[in-house]
Amino acid sequence: MRLRLDLAYEGTDFHGWARQPSLRTVQGELEAALAQILRCAIAVTCAGRTDAGVHARGQVVHLDVDETALEGSRGRGTTDTEPALLRRLNGILRTDARVLRATRAADGFDARFSALWRRYAYRIADAPDLVDPLARRNVLTRSRPLDLDAMNEAAALLTGEHDFAAFCRRREGATTIRTLLDLFWCRDDQGLAVATVRADAFCHTMVRSLVGAMIAVGERRQDPEWAREVLVARQRDPAVTVARPHGLTLEQVAYPRDEDLAAQARAARVVRTLGPGHG
Amino acid sequence: MRLRLDLAYEGTDFHGWARQPSLRTVQGELEAALAQILRCAIAVTCAGRTDAGVHARGQVVHLDVDETALEGSRGRGTTDTEPALLRRLNGILRTDARVLRATRAADGFDARFSALWRRYAYRIADAPDLVDPLARRNVLTRSRPLDLDAMNEAAALLTGEHDFAAFCRRREGATTIRTLLDLFWCRDDQGLAVATVRADAFCHTMVRSLVGAMIAVGERRQDPEWAREVLVARQRDPAVTVARPHGLTLEQVAYPRDEDLAAQARAARVVRTLGPGHG
Repeated sequence: MRLRLDLAYEGTDFHGWARQPSLRTVQGELEAALAQILRCAIAVTCAGRTDAGVHARGQVVHLDVDETALEGSRGRGTTDTEPALLRRLNGILRTDARVLRATRAADGFDARFSALWRRYAYRIADAPDLVDPLARRNVLTRSRPLDLDAMNEAAALLTGEHDFAAFCRRREGATTIRTLLDLFWCRDDQGLAVATVRADAFCHTMVRSLVGAMIAVGERRQDPEWAREVLVARQRDPAVTVARPHGLTLEQVAYPRDEDLAAQARAARVVRTLGPGHG
Repeated sequence: MRLRLDLAYEGTDFHGWARQPSLRTVQGELEAALAQILRCAIAVTCAGRTDAGVHARGQVVHLDVDETALEGSRGRGTTDTEPALLRRLNGILRTDARVLRATRAADGFDARFSALWRRYAYRIADAPDLVDPLARRNVLTRSRPLDLDAMNEAAALLTGEHDFAAFCRRREGATTIRTLLDLFWCRDDQGLAVATVRADAFCHTMVRSLVGAMIAVGERRQDPEWAREVLVARQRDPAVTVARPHGLTLEQVAYPRDEDLAAQARAARVVRTLGPGHG
Protein backbone atom coordinates (compact mmCIF):
# COMPACT_ATOMS: atom_id res chain seq x y z
CA MET A 1 0.00 0.00 0.00
CA ARG A 2 1.33 3.44 -0.94
CA LEU A 3 1.07 6.42 1.39
CA ARG A 4 1.50 10.09 0.57
CA LEU A 5 2.91 12.44 3.20
CA ASP A 6 2.87 16.22 2.88
CA LEU A 7 5.70 17.82 4.84
CA ALA A 8 7.01 21.18 5.96
CA TYR A 9 10.42 21.85 7.46
CA GLU A 10 12.82 24.59 8.38
CA GLY A 11 16.09 23.67 6.68
CA THR A 12 18.37 25.60 9.06
CA ASP A 13 19.42 22.65 11.20
CA PHE A 14 19.27 19.95 8.50
CA HIS A 15 22.03 18.95 6.11
CA GLY A 16 19.47 19.01 3.32
CA TRP A 17 16.89 16.45 2.29
CA ALA A 18 18.90 13.41 1.24
CA ARG A 19 19.90 10.76 3.78
CA GLN A 20 23.60 10.89 4.67
CA PRO A 21 25.46 8.77 7.15
CA SER A 22 25.88 10.51 10.53
CA LEU A 23 24.39 13.82 9.38
CA ARG A 24 20.96 15.11 10.34
CA THR A 25 18.82 15.20 7.19
CA VAL A 26 15.07 15.42 6.64
CA GLN A 27 14.91 12.08 4.84
CA GLY A 28 17.01 10.46 7.55
CA GLU A 29 14.82 11.75 10.39
CA LEU A 30 11.59 10.89 8.59
CA GLU A 31 12.69 7.37 7.71
CA ALA A 32 13.91 6.77 11.26
CA ALA A 33 10.56 7.91 12.67
CA LEU A 34 8.66 5.71 10.21
CA ALA A 35 10.85 2.71 11.05
CA GLN A 36 10.18 3.24 14.75
CA ILE A 37 6.42 3.31 14.20
CA LEU A 38 6.12 0.64 11.52
CA ARG A 39 8.90 -1.58 12.93
CA CYS A 40 10.56 -2.13 9.59
CA ALA A 41 12.98 -0.26 7.34
CA ILE A 42 11.17 2.30 5.20
CA ALA A 43 12.48 4.23 2.18
CA VAL A 44 10.71 7.40 1.12
CA THR A 45 10.80 9.15 -2.27
CA CYS A 46 10.35 12.91 -2.40
CA ALA A 47 9.16 15.36 -5.03
CA GLY A 48 11.99 17.87 -4.61
CA ARG A 49 15.33 17.10 -2.98
CA THR A 50 16.24 20.31 -1.19
CA ASP A 51 19.82 21.40 -0.44
CA ALA A 52 21.19 22.11 3.02
CA GLY A 53 19.51 25.17 4.48
CA VAL A 54 16.58 25.21 2.03
CA HIS A 55 13.08 25.08 3.56
CA ALA A 56 9.83 23.45 2.49
CA ARG A 57 6.17 24.19 3.10
CA GLY A 58 4.86 21.81 0.45
CA GLN A 59 7.23 18.86 0.18
CA VAL A 60 5.54 15.62 -0.87
CA VAL A 61 6.83 12.07 -0.37
CA HIS A 62 5.53 8.60 -0.98
CA LEU A 63 6.36 5.35 0.76
CA ASP A 64 5.20 1.80 0.33
CA VAL A 65 4.10 -0.02 3.46
CA ASP A 66 2.84 -3.40 4.35
CA GLU A 67 -0.80 -2.99 5.29
CA THR A 68 -0.31 -5.21 8.37
CA ALA A 69 2.54 -3.03 9.65
CA LEU A 70 0.32 0.01 9.29
CA GLU A 71 -2.53 -1.77 11.12
CA GLY A 72 -0.11 -2.49 13.95
CA SER A 73 0.70 1.20 14.22
CA ARG A 74 -2.93 2.11 14.89
CA GLY A 75 -3.86 3.39 18.28
CA ARG A 76 -6.29 1.22 20.20
CA GLY A 77 -9.87 1.95 19.16
CA THR A 78 -8.72 4.06 16.19
CA THR A 79 -10.12 3.05 12.85
CA ASP A 80 -8.61 5.75 10.67
CA THR A 81 -4.98 4.76 10.17
CA GLU A 82 -3.56 7.91 8.66
CA PRO A 83 -4.48 10.44 11.40
CA ALA A 84 -2.88 8.05 13.90
CA LEU A 85 0.28 7.87 11.77
CA LEU A 86 0.30 11.67 11.45
CA ARG A 87 0.07 12.11 15.22
CA ARG A 88 2.72 9.52 15.95
CA LEU A 89 5.15 10.90 13.36
CA ASN A 90 4.78 14.43 14.70
CA GLY A 91 5.24 13.07 18.20
CA ILE A 92 8.64 11.65 17.22
CA LEU A 93 9.91 14.37 14.86
CA ARG A 94 11.43 17.51 16.28
CA THR A 95 9.41 20.68 15.71
CA ASP A 96 11.51 21.88 12.76
CA ALA A 97 9.87 19.18 10.61
CA ARG A 98 6.12 18.53 10.57
CA VAL A 99 3.92 16.09 8.68
CA LEU A 100 0.94 18.16 7.54
CA ARG A 101 -1.12 15.33 6.00
CA ALA A 102 -0.87 11.56 5.72
CA THR A 103 -3.15 9.96 3.15
CA ARG A 104 -3.44 6.77 1.13
CA ALA A 105 -2.08 7.57 -2.32
CA ALA A 106 -4.25 7.10 -5.38
CA ASP A 107 -3.26 4.32 -7.81
CA GLY A 108 -0.29 5.29 -9.93
CA PHE A 109 0.88 8.06 -7.58
CA ASP A 110 4.63 8.67 -7.49
CA ALA A 111 5.78 11.71 -5.49
CA ARG A 112 8.66 12.34 -7.88
CA PHE A 113 7.49 11.19 -11.29
CA SER A 114 3.78 12.04 -11.12
CA ALA A 115 4.50 15.68 -10.31
CA LEU A 116 3.44 18.21 -12.94
CA TRP A 117 5.53 21.03 -11.53
CA ARG A 118 7.36 22.34 -8.49
CA ARG A 119 7.03 25.90 -7.19
CA TYR A 120 9.70 27.61 -5.10
CA ALA A 121 9.77 31.06 -3.51
CA TYR A 122 12.89 33.11 -2.79
CA ARG A 123 12.52 36.00 -0.35
CA ILE A 124 14.76 39.06 0.02
CA ALA A 125 14.65 42.02 2.41
CA ASP A 126 16.48 44.79 0.56
CA ALA A 127 16.02 47.70 2.97
CA PRO A 128 16.76 48.00 6.71
CA ASP A 129 13.10 48.50 7.64
CA LEU A 130 12.11 45.28 5.82
CA VAL A 131 14.32 43.09 8.00
CA ASP A 132 12.10 41.04 10.31
CA PRO A 133 14.02 39.12 12.98
CA LEU A 134 11.14 36.64 13.10
CA ALA A 135 11.77 35.77 9.45
CA ARG A 136 15.55 35.94 9.40
CA ARG A 137 15.96 32.21 8.86
CA ASN A 138 14.03 32.21 5.58
CA VAL A 139 14.63 35.67 4.15
CA LEU A 140 17.89 36.87 2.62
CA THR A 141 19.05 40.35 3.63
CA ARG A 142 20.67 42.64 1.03
CA SER A 143 21.77 46.15 1.82
CA ARG A 144 21.17 47.62 -1.67
CA PRO A 145 17.59 48.15 -2.92
CA LEU A 146 16.66 45.78 -5.76
CA ASP A 147 15.26 47.03 -9.06
CA LEU A 148 12.44 44.54 -9.56
CA ASP A 149 11.57 45.88 -13.00
CA ALA A 150 15.06 45.08 -14.26
CA MET A 151 14.90 41.65 -12.58
CA ASN A 152 11.59 40.92 -14.26
CA GLU A 153 13.06 41.92 -17.62
CA ALA A 154 15.84 39.39 -17.08
CA ALA A 155 13.34 36.81 -15.83
CA ALA A 156 11.27 37.12 -19.00
CA LEU A 157 14.37 36.19 -21.04
CA LEU A 158 14.81 32.99 -19.03
CA THR A 159 11.29 31.55 -19.00
CA GLY A 160 10.26 28.76 -21.34
CA GLU A 161 11.97 25.54 -22.40
CA HIS A 162 15.74 25.92 -22.45
CA ASP A 163 18.95 24.10 -21.73
CA PHE A 164 19.74 25.49 -18.27
CA ALA A 165 23.29 24.07 -18.17
CA ALA A 166 24.60 27.56 -17.34
CA PHE A 167 22.59 27.53 -14.11
CA CYS A 168 23.06 23.88 -13.09
CA ARG A 169 25.67 21.83 -11.39
CA ARG A 170 26.38 19.44 -14.25
CA ARG A 171 25.95 15.70 -13.86
CA GLU A 172 27.34 13.18 -16.33
CA GLY A 173 24.71 11.95 -18.78
CA ALA A 174 21.93 14.04 -17.29
CA THR A 175 19.84 16.42 -19.33
CA THR A 176 19.72 20.03 -18.22
CA ILE A 177 16.75 20.90 -20.41
CA ARG A 178 13.85 22.15 -18.31
CA THR A 179 10.65 24.12 -18.85
CA LEU A 180 10.65 27.21 -16.67
CA LEU A 181 6.93 27.94 -16.43
CA ASP A 182 7.08 31.01 -14.17
CA LEU A 183 9.86 33.30 -13.08
CA PHE A 184 8.89 36.70 -11.72
CA TRP A 185 9.45 39.03 -8.80
CA CYS A 186 6.93 40.99 -6.80
CA ARG A 187 6.68 42.78 -3.46
CA ASP A 188 4.65 40.92 -0.83
CA ASP A 189 2.43 42.78 1.63
CA GLN A 190 5.40 43.41 3.92
CA GLY A 191 7.43 44.82 1.04
CA LEU A 192 9.83 41.89 0.64
CA ALA A 193 11.07 41.06 -2.86
CA VAL A 194 9.72 37.57 -3.58
CA ALA A 195 10.58 35.42 -6.59
CA THR A 196 8.11 32.83 -7.81
CA VAL A 197 9.99 30.08 -9.63
CA ARG A 198 7.93 27.28 -11.16
CA ALA A 199 9.14 24.55 -13.51
CA ASP A 200 8.34 20.98 -14.52
CA ALA A 201 11.51 20.09 -12.60
CA PHE A 202 14.77 21.71 -11.60
CA CYS A 203 18.36 20.55 -11.85
CA HIS A 204 20.78 20.96 -9.00
CA THR A 205 21.31 24.57 -7.72
CA MET A 206 19.18 25.84 -10.64
CA VAL A 207 16.77 27.98 -8.58
CA ARG A 208 19.52 29.56 -6.51
CA SER A 209 21.68 30.23 -9.59
CA LEU A 210 18.76 31.91 -11.38
CA VAL A 211 18.12 34.01 -8.27
CA GLY A 212 21.82 34.86 -7.96
CA ALA A 213 21.90 36.05 -11.58
CA MET A 214 18.79 38.15 -11.10
CA ILE A 215 20.16 39.75 -7.91
CA ALA A 216 23.16 40.90 -9.97
CA VAL A 217 20.69 42.52 -12.39
CA GLY A 218 18.56 43.97 -9.58
CA GLU A 219 21.61 45.59 -7.99
CA ARG A 220 22.62 46.98 -11.42
CA ARG A 221 25.85 45.04 -11.59
CA GLN A 222 24.58 43.48 -14.83
CA ASP A 223 22.06 44.43 -17.51
CA PRO A 224 18.92 42.33 -17.93
CA GLU A 225 20.16 41.20 -21.36
CA TRP A 226 23.18 39.59 -19.67
CA ALA A 227 20.87 36.89 -18.31
CA ARG A 228 20.17 35.68 -21.86
CA GLU A 229 23.88 35.76 -22.71
CA VAL A 230 24.57 33.49 -19.75
CA LEU A 231 21.72 31.15 -20.73
CA VAL A 232 22.76 30.68 -24.36
CA ALA A 233 26.42 30.12 -23.43
CA ARG A 234 25.23 26.88 -21.78
CA GLN A 235 28.15 26.71 -19.41
CA ARG A 236 28.54 27.91 -15.87
CA ASP A 237 29.52 31.55 -15.69
CA PRO A 238 31.66 32.59 -12.71
CA ALA A 239 29.71 35.88 -12.63
CA VAL A 240 26.61 33.91 -11.60
CA THR A 241 26.61 33.57 -7.83
CA VAL A 242 24.52 30.78 -6.29
CA ALA A 243 22.22 32.67 -3.90
CA ARG A 244 22.37 31.58 -0.26
CA PRO A 245 20.05 28.67 0.57
CA HIS A 246 18.11 30.16 3.48
CA GLY A 247 16.03 32.50 1.30
CA LEU A 248 14.61 29.54 -0.63
CA THR A 249 11.45 27.58 0.20
CA LEU A 250 9.80 24.75 -1.73
CA GLU A 251 6.20 25.97 -1.59
CA GLN A 252 4.17 23.56 -3.68
CA VAL A 253 4.24 20.44 -5.81
CA ALA A 254 1.32 19.91 -8.19
CA TYR A 255 -0.06 16.58 -9.42
CA PRO A 256 -2.61 15.78 -12.11
CA ARG A 257 -6.05 14.31 -11.42
CA ASP A 258 -5.94 10.78 -10.03
CA GLU A 259 -6.74 9.16 -13.38
CA ASP A 260 -3.73 10.84 -15.02
CA LEU A 261 -1.14 10.05 -12.32
CA ALA A 262 0.24 6.91 -13.93
CA ALA A 263 0.47 8.42 -17.43
CA GLN A 264 2.27 11.48 -16.07
CA ALA A 265 4.73 9.25 -14.19
CA ARG A 266 5.44 7.21 -17.35
CA ALA A 267 6.06 10.37 -19.39
CA ALA A 268 8.32 11.99 -16.80
CA ARG A 269 10.26 8.77 -16.33
CA VAL A 270 11.15 8.62 -20.03
CA VAL A 271 12.49 12.17 -20.01
CA ARG A 272 14.15 12.21 -16.66
CA THR A 273 15.29 8.73 -15.56
CA LEU A 274 18.79 9.70 -16.62
CA GLY A 275 18.30 13.20 -15.21
CA PRO A 276 19.47 14.44 -11.89
CA GLY A 277 16.05 13.93 -10.42
CA HIS A 278 16.15 17.12 -8.43
CA GLY A 279 12.72 18.60 -8.05
CA MET B 1 18.50 65.88 21.38
CA ARG B 2 15.86 63.13 21.40
CA LEU B 3 16.03 60.19 18.99
CA ARG B 4 13.29 57.72 18.11
CA LEU B 5 14.22 54.14 17.24
CA ASP B 6 11.79 51.64 15.72
CA LEU B 7 12.72 48.07 16.60
CA ALA B 8 11.85 44.48 15.81
CA TYR B 9 13.01 41.44 17.70
CA GLU B 10 12.43 37.74 18.13
CA GLY B 11 11.88 37.25 21.86
CA THR B 12 12.93 33.58 21.96
CA ASP B 13 16.46 34.15 23.23
CA PHE B 14 15.77 37.27 25.31
CA HIS B 15 14.65 37.42 28.92
CA GLY B 16 12.11 40.03 27.91
CA TRP B 17 12.51 43.75 27.29
CA ALA B 18 13.58 45.18 30.64
CA ARG B 19 17.26 45.37 31.58
CA GLN B 20 18.25 42.78 34.22
CA PRO B 21 21.67 42.15 35.67
CA SER B 22 23.45 39.25 33.93
CA LEU B 23 20.47 38.27 31.76
CA ARG B 24 20.21 38.91 28.02
CA THR B 25 17.39 41.41 27.48
CA VAL B 26 16.48 43.64 24.54
CA GLN B 27 16.91 46.83 26.53
CA GLY B 28 20.23 45.61 27.88
CA GLU B 29 21.60 44.75 24.42
CA LEU B 30 20.34 47.96 22.86
CA GLU B 31 21.72 50.19 25.60
CA ALA B 32 25.07 48.40 25.46
CA ALA B 33 25.25 48.89 21.67
CA LEU B 34 24.33 52.58 22.03
CA ALA B 35 26.93 53.05 24.77
CA GLN B 36 29.58 51.48 22.53
CA ILE B 37 28.74 53.84 19.64
CA LEU B 38 28.07 57.03 21.59
CA ARG B 39 30.74 56.39 24.25
CA CYS B 40 28.49 57.26 27.16
CA ALA B 41 25.81 55.53 29.22
CA ILE B 42 22.44 55.68 27.48
CA ALA B 43 19.00 54.87 28.93
CA VAL B 44 16.15 54.11 26.55
CA THR B 45 12.40 54.28 27.21
CA CYS B 46 10.10 51.95 25.31
CA ALA B 47 6.44 52.04 24.34
CA GLY B 48 5.61 48.50 25.43
CA ARG B 49 7.70 46.43 27.82
CA THR B 50 7.40 42.88 26.50
CA ASP B 51 7.72 39.77 28.67
CA ALA B 52 10.27 37.00 28.11
CA GLY B 53 9.52 35.18 24.89
CA VAL B 54 7.25 37.87 23.43
CA HIS B 55 8.23 39.31 20.03
CA ALA B 56 7.99 42.76 18.49
CA ARG B 57 7.72 44.07 14.96
CA GLY B 58 6.78 47.62 15.94
CA GLN B 59 8.50 48.46 19.23
CA VAL B 60 9.33 52.15 19.64
CA VAL B 61 11.89 53.69 22.00
CA HIS B 62 13.27 57.13 22.66
CA LEU B 63 16.63 58.19 24.02
CA ASP B 64 18.22 61.53 24.75
CA VAL B 65 21.69 62.08 23.41
CA ASP B 66 24.23 64.80 23.47
CA GLU B 67 24.42 66.19 19.95
CA THR B 68 28.23 66.16 20.11
CA ALA B 69 28.30 62.45 20.99
CA LEU B 70 26.05 61.74 18.03
CA GLU B 71 28.30 63.80 15.75
CA GLY B 72 31.24 61.73 16.94
CA SER B 73 29.44 58.55 15.92
CA ARG B 74 29.20 59.68 12.31
CA GLY B 75 31.18 57.80 9.75
CA ARG B 76 33.79 59.84 7.95
CA GLY B 77 32.21 61.84 5.15
CA THR B 78 28.69 61.00 6.30
CA THR B 79 26.45 63.96 6.87
CA ASP B 80 23.20 62.20 7.77
CA THR B 81 23.64 61.02 11.33
CA GLU B 82 20.69 58.71 11.71
CA PRO B 83 21.38 56.28 8.83
CA ALA B 84 24.92 55.94 10.16
CA LEU B 85 23.58 55.19 13.65
CA LEU B 86 21.14 52.63 12.18
CA ARG B 87 23.92 50.84 10.32
CA ARG B 88 26.26 50.84 13.30
CA LEU B 89 23.60 49.60 15.72
CA ASN B 90 22.62 46.75 13.39
CA GLY B 91 26.30 45.95 12.97
CA ILE B 92 26.64 45.43 16.72
CA LEU B 93 23.28 43.81 17.54
CA ARG B 94 22.77 40.12 16.89
CA THR B 95 20.31 39.31 14.12
CA ASP B 96 17.42 38.52 16.49
CA ALA B 97 17.04 42.26 17.15
CA ARG B 98 17.04 44.89 14.41
CA VAL B 99 16.69 48.64 14.37
CA LEU B 100 14.30 49.41 11.52
CA ARG B 101 14.46 53.21 11.63
CA ALA B 102 16.42 55.83 13.53
CA THR B 103 15.03 59.36 13.38
CA ARG B 104 15.19 62.64 15.28
CA ALA B 105 12.06 62.77 17.42
CA ALA B 106 9.63 65.65 17.04
CA ASP B 107 9.33 68.06 19.97
CA GLY B 108 7.32 66.59 22.82
CA PHE B 109 7.76 62.97 21.69
CA ASP B 110 7.85 60.37 24.45
CA ALA B 111 7.83 56.73 23.31
CA ARG B 112 5.79 55.67 26.32
CA PHE B 113 3.57 58.59 27.21
CA SER B 114 2.88 60.03 23.76
CA ALA B 115 1.52 56.73 22.48
CA LEU B 116 -2.18 56.69 21.56
CA TRP B 117 -2.44 52.91 21.53
CA ARG B 118 -0.54 49.64 21.27
CA ARG B 119 -1.57 46.78 18.98
CA TYR B 120 -0.59 43.17 19.60
CA ALA B 121 -1.27 40.01 17.57
CA TYR B 122 -1.55 36.51 18.96
CA ARG B 123 -1.26 33.64 16.46
CA ILE B 124 -2.48 30.06 16.85
CA ALA B 125 -2.24 27.02 14.55
CA ASP B 126 -5.16 24.82 15.59
CA ALA B 127 -4.90 22.00 13.03
CA PRO B 128 -1.96 19.78 12.04
CA ASP B 129 -1.83 21.13 8.47
CA LEU B 130 -1.57 24.73 9.75
CA VAL B 131 1.66 24.06 11.63
CA ASP B 132 4.53 25.78 9.80
CA PRO B 133 7.97 24.90 11.14
CA LEU B 134 9.23 28.24 9.79
CA ALA B 135 6.81 30.05 12.10
CA ARG B 136 7.02 27.79 15.14
CA ARG B 137 8.75 30.40 17.28
CA ASN B 138 5.90 32.90 16.99
CA VAL B 139 2.80 30.74 16.56
CA LEU B 140 1.17 28.70 19.32
CA THR B 141 0.12 25.17 18.38
CA ARG B 142 -3.15 23.76 19.74
CA SER B 143 -4.41 20.32 18.84
CA ARG B 144 -8.15 21.11 19.08
CA PRO B 145 -9.82 23.32 16.46
CA LEU B 146 -10.85 26.72 17.81
CA ASP B 147 -14.39 28.05 17.43
CA LEU B 148 -13.64 31.62 16.38
CA ASP B 149 -17.30 32.65 16.46
CA ALA B 150 -17.52 31.74 20.14
CA MET B 151 -14.22 33.52 20.81
CA ASN B 152 -15.48 36.66 19.08
CA GLU B 153 -18.66 36.53 21.17
CA ALA B 154 -16.50 36.49 24.30
CA ALA B 155 -14.23 39.20 22.87
CA ALA B 156 -17.19 41.51 22.30
CA LEU B 157 -18.04 41.27 26.00
CA LEU B 158 -14.54 42.40 26.95
CA THR B 159 -14.00 45.40 24.68
CA GLY B 160 -14.43 48.95 25.96
CA GLU B 161 -13.28 50.69 29.13
CA HIS B 162 -13.21 48.29 32.06
CA ASP B 163 -11.28 47.43 35.18
CA PHE B 164 -9.18 44.52 33.86
CA ALA B 165 -7.95 43.47 37.32
CA ALA B 166 -9.15 39.91 36.59
CA PHE B 167 -6.67 39.69 33.70
CA CYS B 168 -3.72 41.53 35.24
CA ARG B 169 -0.93 40.80 37.59
CA ARG B 170 -1.86 43.27 40.31
CA ARG B 171 0.54 45.99 41.43
CA GLU B 172 0.06 47.98 44.60
CA GLY B 173 -1.42 51.39 43.95
CA ALA B 174 -1.66 50.89 40.20
CA THR B 175 -4.86 51.30 38.25
CA THR B 176 -6.00 48.33 36.16
CA ILE B 177 -8.58 50.35 34.22
CA ARG B 178 -7.85 50.24 30.51
CA THR B 179 -9.71 50.92 27.27
CA LEU B 180 -9.69 47.83 25.09
CA LEU B 181 -10.25 49.34 21.65
CA ASP B 182 -10.14 46.14 19.58
CA LEU B 183 -10.32 42.48 20.45
CA PHE B 184 -11.25 40.08 17.68
CA TRP B 185 -10.16 36.86 16.00
CA CYS B 186 -9.90 36.09 12.32
CA ARG B 187 -8.19 33.56 10.03
CA ASP B 188 -5.19 34.91 8.14
CA ASP B 189 -4.46 33.81 4.58
CA GLN B 190 -2.66 30.70 5.83
CA GLY B 191 -5.63 29.75 8.02
CA LEU B 192 -4.06 30.63 11.38
CA ALA B 193 -6.32 31.98 14.12
CA VAL B 194 -5.04 35.51 14.79
CA ALA B 195 -6.19 37.80 17.59
CA THR B 196 -5.93 41.56 17.15
CA VAL B 197 -5.65 43.19 20.57
CA ARG B 198 -5.50 46.99 20.68
CA ALA B 199 -5.74 49.21 23.76
CA ASP B 200 -4.60 52.59 25.03
CA ALA B 201 -2.22 50.61 27.23
CA PHE B 202 -2.02 47.18 28.83
CA CYS B 203 -1.25 46.05 32.32
CA HIS B 204 1.08 43.15 33.02
CA THR B 205 0.10 39.77 31.42
CA MET B 206 -3.20 41.34 30.26
CA VAL B 207 -2.98 40.34 26.57
CA ARG B 208 -1.94 36.78 27.33
CA SER B 209 -4.62 36.40 30.02
CA LEU B 210 -7.31 37.65 27.63
CA VAL B 211 -6.04 35.21 24.99
CA GLY B 212 -5.93 32.36 27.51
CA ALA B 213 -9.55 33.03 28.51
CA MET B 214 -10.66 33.12 24.88
CA ILE B 215 -8.83 29.87 24.07
CA ALA B 216 -10.89 28.22 26.84
CA VAL B 217 -14.02 29.52 25.08
CA GLY B 218 -12.77 28.53 21.63
CA GLU B 219 -12.10 24.98 22.81
CA ARG B 220 -15.59 24.88 24.37
CA ARG B 221 -14.33 24.46 27.91
CA GLN B 222 -16.21 27.67 28.80
CA ASP B 223 -19.17 29.59 27.40
CA PRO B 224 -18.58 33.04 25.91
CA GLU B 225 -20.64 34.58 28.73
CA TRP B 226 -18.06 33.27 31.22
CA ALA B 227 -15.60 35.90 29.96
CA ARG B 228 -17.89 38.64 31.29
CA GLU B 229 -18.27 36.86 34.62
CA VAL B 230 -14.50 36.78 34.98
CA LEU B 231 -14.23 40.47 34.04
CA VAL B 232 -16.84 41.75 36.50
CA ALA B 233 -15.43 39.63 39.37
CA ARG B 234 -12.34 41.90 39.11
CA GLN B 235 -10.04 39.34 40.66
CA ARG B 236 -7.81 36.76 39.07
CA ASP B 237 -9.67 33.57 38.25
CA PRO B 238 -7.63 30.35 38.41
CA ALA B 239 -9.60 29.12 35.36
CA VAL B 240 -7.91 31.83 33.27
CA THR B 241 -4.63 30.49 31.94
CA VAL B 242 -1.98 32.97 30.81
CA ALA B 243 -1.32 31.94 27.19
CA ARG B 244 2.28 31.09 26.36
CA PRO B 245 4.40 34.09 25.38
CA HIS B 246 5.74 32.90 22.02
CA GLY B 247 2.41 33.39 20.18
CA LEU B 248 2.41 37.09 21.04
CA THR B 249 3.91 39.92 18.97
CA LEU B 250 3.80 43.67 19.58
CA GLU B 251 2.89 44.82 16.07
CA GLN B 252 2.37 48.57 16.24
CA VAL B 253 2.42 51.61 18.48
CA ALA B 254 0.52 54.68 17.27
CA TYR B 255 1.29 58.31 18.03
CA PRO B 256 -0.68 61.49 17.36
CA ARG B 257 0.40 64.18 14.91
CA ASP B 258 3.56 66.01 15.95
CA GLU B 259 1.69 69.03 17.30
CA ASP B 260 -0.34 66.82 19.68
CA LEU B 261 2.57 64.75 21.06
CA ALA B 262 3.18 66.86 24.16
CA ALA B 263 -0.51 67.14 25.08
CA GLN B 264 -0.98 63.39 24.70
CA ALA B 265 2.06 62.75 26.93
CA ARG B 266 0.71 65.11 29.60
CA ALA B 267 -2.70 63.43 29.56
CA ALA B 268 -1.28 59.88 29.71
CA ARG B 269 1.11 60.83 32.48
CA VAL B 270 -1.73 62.04 34.70
CA VAL B 271 -3.64 58.77 34.30
CA ARG B 272 -0.76 56.36 34.35
CA THR B 273 2.21 57.71 36.28
CA LEU B 274 1.16 55.53 39.20
CA GLY B 275 0.17 52.71 36.81
CA PRO B 276 2.19 49.68 35.91
CA GLY B 277 3.45 51.38 32.79
CA HIS B 278 3.28 48.30 30.67
CA GLY B 279 2.46 49.13 27.10
